[in-house]
Amino acid sequence: MSEYRVVGKSVPRVDARDKVAGKCLFGADIKLPGMLQGRMLYSTRPHARILNIDTARAERLPGVRAVITGKDVPRRRFGTIVQDEPVMALDKVLFVGDRVAAVAADSLDTAEEAVSLIKVEYKDLPSLFDPREAMKPNAKVIHKDWESYGKGRFRTISDRAGNICGHSEFSMGDPEKGFSEADMIFEDEYTTPMVHQGYIEPHAATAMVEPSGQITVWSTTQGQFELRADLAGLFELPMSRIKVIPTEIGGAFGGKIAPLLEPACVVLSRMTGRPVQMVMSRRDEQIAARPRHPGLMRIKTGVKKDGTITAREVVIILDSGAYADFGPGAAYAAAVGGRGPYAIANARMEGFCVYTNKPSGGSYRAPGGPQVTFAIESHMDAIAEALGIDPLEIRLKNGLKEGDISYIGKRIERGALRDTLHRAAEGIGWGEPKEGPNRGRGLASAQWSNGGAAAGLTVKINDDGTASVVTGSVDATGSNTVIAQAVAEELNLPMSSIQVVTGDTDTALNAPLTGGSMIAYNMGKAAMLAAQDTRRQIMEVAAERLGVEQEKLRMENGQVWVKGEEDKRLSLGSITRTAQRFRGTLIVGKGSLPAPAPAFMMCSQGAEVEVDTQTGQVVIHKLVASHDVGFALNPDSVEGQLQGGMVQGLGAALMEDVRLNNGNVENPSFKDYKIPTAVDFPSIETSIVEQNSEEGPYGAKGVGETPINPPAAAIANAVYDAVGVRITDLPITPEKILEALREKADT
Amino acid sequence: MSEYRVVGKSVPRVDARDKVAGKCLFGADIKLPGMLQGRMLYSTRPHARILNIDTARAERLPGVRAVITGKDVPRRRFGTIVQDEPVMALDKVLFVGDRVAAVAADSLDTAEEAVSLIKVEYKDLPSLFDPREAMKPNAKVIHKDWESYGKGRFRTISDRAGNICGHSEFSMGDPEKGFSEADMIFEDEYTTPMVHQGYIEPHAATAMVEPSGQITVWSTTQGQFELRADLAGLFELPMSRIKVIPTEIGGAFGGKIAPLLEPACVVLSRMTGRPVQMVMSRRDEQIAARPRHPGLMRIKTGVKKDGTITAREVVIILDSGAYADFGPGAAYAAAVGGRGPYAIANARMEGFCVYTNKPSGGSYRAPGGPQVTFAIESHMDAIAEALGIDPLEIRLKNGLKEGDISYIGKRIERGALRDTLHRAAEGIGWGEPKEGPNRGRGLASAQWSNGGAAAGLTVKINDDGTASVVTGSVDATGSNTVIAQAVAEELNLPMSSIQVVTGDTDTALNAPLTGGSMIAYNMGKAAMLAAQDTRRQIMEVAAERLGVEQEKLRMENGQVWVKGEEDKRLSLGSITRTAQRFRGTLIVGKGSLPAPAPAFMMCSQGAEVEVDTQTGQVVIHKLVASHDVGFALNPDSVEGQLQGGMVQGLGAALMEDVRLNNGNVENPSFKDYKIPTAVDFPSIETSIVEQNSEEGPYGAKGVGETPINPPAAAIANAVYDAVGVRITDLPITPEKILEALREKADT
Repeated sequence: MSEYRVVGKSVPRVDARDKVAGKCLFGADIKLPGMLQGRMLYSTRPHARILNIDTARAERLPGVRAVITGKDVPRRRFGTIVQDEPVMALDKVLFVGDRVAAVAADSLDTAEEAVSLIKVEYKDLPSLFDPREAMKPNAKVIHKDWESYGKGRFRTISDRAGNICGHSEFSMGDPEKGFSEADMIFEDEYTTPMVHQGYIEPHAATAMVEPSGQITVWSTTQGQFELRADLAGLFELPMSRIKVIPTEIGGAFGGKIAPLLEPACVVLSRMTGRPVQMVMSRRDEQIAARPRHPGLMRIKTGVKKDGTITAREVVIILDSGAYADFGPGAAYAAAVGGRGPYAIANARMEGFCVYTNKPSGGSYRAPGGPQVTFAIESHMDAIAEALGIDPLEIRLKNGLKEGDISYIGKRIERGALRDTLHRAAEGIGWGEPKEGPNRGRGLASAQWSNGGAAAGLTVKINDDGTASVVTGSVDATGSNTVIAQAVAEELNLPMSSIQVVTGDTDTALNAPLTGGSMIAYNMGKAAMLAAQDTRRQIMEVAAERLGVEQEKLRMENGQVWVKGEEDKRLSLGSITRTAQRFRGTLIVGKGSLPAPAPAFMMCSQGAEVEVDTQTGQVVIHKLVASHDVGFALNPDSVEGQLQGGMVQGLGAALMEDVRLNNGNVENPSFKDYKIPTAVDFPSIETSIVEQNSEEGPYGAKGVGETPINPPAAAIANAVYDAVGVRITDLPITPEKILEALREKADT
Repeated sequence: MSEYRVVGKSVPRVDARDKVAGKCLFGADIKLPGMLQGRMLYSTRPHARILNIDTARAERLPGVRAVITGKDVPRRRFGTIVQDEPVMALDKVLFVGDRVAAVAADSLDTAEEAVSLIKVEYKDLPSLFDPREAMKPNAKVIHKDWESYGKGRFRTISDRAGNICGHSEFSMGDPEKGFSEADMIFEDEYTTPMVHQGYIEPHAATAMVEPSGQITVWSTTQGQFELRADLAGLFELPMSRIKVIPTEIGGAFGGKIAPLLEPACVVLSRMTGRPVQMVMSRRDEQIAARPRHPGLMRIKTGVKKDGTITAREVVIILDSGAYADFGPGAAYAAAVGGRGPYAIANARMEGFCVYTNKPSGGSYRAPGGPQVTFAIESHMDAIAEALGIDPLEIRLKNGLKEGDISYIGKRIERGALRDTLHRAAEGIGWGEPKEGPNRGRGLASAQWSNGGAAAGLTVKINDDGTASVVTGSVDATGSNTVIAQAVAEELNLPMSSIQVVTGDTDTALNAPLTGGSMIAYNMGKAAMLAAQDTRRQIMEVAAERLGVEQEKLRMENGQVWVKGEEDKRLSLGSITRTAQRFRGTLIVGKGSLPAPAPAFMMCSQGAEVEVDTQTGQVVIHKLVASHDVGFALNPDSVEGQLQGGMVQGLGAALMEDVRLNNGNVENPSFKDYKIPTAVDFPSIETSIVEQNSEEGPYGAKGVGETPINPPAAAIANAVYDAVGVRITDLPITPEKILEALREKADT
């Protein structure tokens, strides 16, 4: 680490003070002259034909400026993978929460009252709530016109047919032979519920359509370029006519990628000639946003007596809800990762994403990952127990190691899984005596790959030698800090001399959306390259002005010095100003890269729990994570990412569950839908393994997604270790534990 | 003109529809959560020591969040040429309108009330209102510490001493010999009053200082980079800690260059932790902004009987008011242009800018130009009459022509002055019979040079092949349209595919401020170069993908074609996307240039007037302009610039006069300070001469400033032609005409 000056150091986040002080401008903070407030009317039926929408009373309400329904919006549909989602329901509603109408009014109160005055006449249709039912050949097809739907950006990701909007299948080796060589075959089924990203800031969008037709959209989006592309497609406009300005983002975790409010805001603004803002309520968020897909995992593994896995079959069924969104991608990721971080020569994996009349699932930190990891890692412990092998041992035995080929086709150089397993086990005192009864320890490992995306970024030297960096990436988790670090490193400048701003779709170069653990890996690299390009330009001018070869120069602390001649030097400000004035050279570096190969990450986590056998309550005493992050660009920031992901994983393990009753969300508030708070988890220990990636900046890999994968299995395994019951359907509620304890006592 | 497709054509302004519909966001339209409204307390004394400022009552007023005075602001002073101006009066006030205190409150009403509650105790000091008095060796020095003042950006522009804050002197040939060779010597004195730019949008600034210390300023500024530099200097901060976002600008004409409200907004925001906005009232504008300097011009010319000028001496004294601002620059420009557009071998010109206790003059369209042009061109007619020579003839005889060297040291290629004189004369029917009594015709010519400044700009190709252009220049007069035209021309794209945005100090490359007739000349060139760079990048990728030499390709309408093979083609969108994905090449062109040599412009204007000898009223029947603009990038836009400049010149000729009484502005509203409205001028004919510049884009020169120079003299000459009286002190009011007619009748 010592070879670097700024990267690899835990410098404070550049946005820390302003965020903590509550001074950043989030989506709902946008204020424009004459701005109207919008509200959406959501469907109250899970599946119904719209016979009539009577907006007359709403329109007559003083202060109401426009009311729109499906007839006022583009007929085109949007979608990342399958273009199946209308801006507003066109003739049918497909879930409770489908967008039916929207209002723009002078005040939020008026808009809400107007929404309550809209009368919708529905004709109910039979609903499908179980993806297994929906997959049946004779099932009613929810999207009658599915064959006519266009394909989105990720067009080639999977097949589809009827209610199956995504299907991915992978096969390797000879699964039949593998199973025939096994001493024992284990089959299990696991389920995970719908869980919500629980970001604190709700969706917020503001649109201003000018008389010229020029559209400006402010959105708490994870990707301004994707949103612009979606809007350009929907409204059939050139991108030059649309500007998307990403606001500060108060949490997203995948939930703020696809358009949600923006198209309706654009239509309302176009109609009223006024800016229109929409902010979702928490209830809106819980019923009409894009949570994690419920998963059903069937897993079958053949093993030798010594624990060696000979074959595996995994089928993952994700419940897509009403629309596909990123569901087929999640099913793909779950299937491709169906072997876990293990070397399994013979395998068959299949992932399905299936339409139902439920809220549409979307992206949520490691889409597909937590579902399949819960299954694999619970299953591993079940096998270990049946074989009488230590859970740590069976993982070490089968884990991907030096020389193995990872899922992304690269040879693994060093045994990162082994390192992380040992550290996680050690962290929870694996094998040591326990401090009391009903205590248990569990391990779980996982793999993930970060995305590789073409990325670009510019570094401009200001007239005083400080630097302005424009990135097209949204800073959700400290990425602007990492970008500043890379620039500070390469230009040998203090962090305070570097200002990183997130640009809009006009001012920034194209950047990937903030997701897929992509930003540090791709934009960090672009920042490094841009700063190197900037440095080259500076050195060229300095060499000319100082009359020496570039090799004789060094750059430090805002100065370029002639080595060994301490009095011969120029400040970056002077270099910049004279370059501009006399050469017409504006010192601005561009860093851009083609989509790099993804990096493959492995990790292990351990949990020590105590189960109250009277109440069924699980108390987490210790949570430990050991992750290979390639190179920790900012160790504190990495630790924060790991902890944050694990807390979300813990929520999904123990408490979170969007409960539906006939398609209605029963717990649409944080009062009923509990997410972990500080009292629910212990301090979390993290341990970083650094096996440098080939293509990431300074060897870094992605960090954001992996930590959410193992917690549920680690906790479930610890619960089993503590009280001998295995919960296979998340969340692990006290009720389920008590029930399982009763069953166990009965047998 | 036909060689180009888009430049040289009168395409509509890209901002026309949104501006006309009132939908653009100007300075006062910025709204931020928790934003406070600020108001300034201005001095009521022309020159006084501040003994005490009692802010207690203001501070106690509910809703008041902060009150600041000189003790709360940086001790540093600012100034473009001389750093003499404090953010707020430190111990003395130097004019009625000097900034004494400022308030930030929850509402504007509260802020205004608070300002009225501040009690300032002054000790009056003797005031200097006449620059001739102030120049005297024994005059009290208004700025006691003038020798300690730093120098601003234009540091080398002139000398100073005592109350003379700017002094420029030029001499050529042998003036004594020239005068001795003359047959006659003419001496005249002319004066011009203080006139206001009269922009419709008042100054408006908003500052937000975040807890981290990061400063964001929204300002209706003409130059975000200059404002950032000023603020960085005042607050001793690196530029990376300050972002200036220029808002749309509702007229400026030079009046929105220097900081005015911004530093106080920053101090108030820092103190309150809230965004603070200040918007000037019209009264504030009239007393505390930066109007055109009153001028006193002494001009002495030696001529042969045939009208040949043998020598000239000009002394220009500009009344700087309390601070220097751009005054020394205006005095420099007036002096350097003291020969007018004439070839005068022997000359001595001297320009003074002198402190008085009056409002501080600033930049106003062609600073120094209208003052000296009024003198020169009135004087030319006086000479012509005395010699019995036609005013057109004396101008043609002495005018700069082919082979002469212009003031900027370049040989004049063709006789642009002759062309413009003939066209202007013809336009007003020079030499033809007049339609009635008391009608007269007048001519006036002028020269000006546009500024050359280092400039840069980027053109980015979007994923669909449209283009986003980021310019650091503020669009005051259609410059973004011209930039779009240059990009459309070079990329062979329709205008609708090009979006030009004005970036802030972080997102845009450095650009000159909007002034000095610089933007089309410098940024238009940068746009042309950036688009050419973009084109090169596109062609390189296209050639590789199509497998042909670049020479075989043509770019048209968003496609690159293989010449002669109509089916072999790629869209710019496809080229862009694949370049990014597979090569990591983001197609973004940079255009930058070192400061080009200025371009030299000459023009002539003609007026036909009718004077009502009963009322003294002057009615303008015809106003004609013929200008050499190098190349009219957008003829309609050029015509608009010429007309706008002439209307402002007409206002200064006939009606505008900031009247002072003991330092107090007597007419601080548009009710009392009249500017021309549509009823005050005829439709104005313009005629464009195109003598291509060497360095401007497509041969263009600057257009903005020159047209304001000749109107006053053309009208004064026409009035003389009509009724035989010559008004030498602007404005030419009915009262002055009647008085002159009476005097003439008496003699």
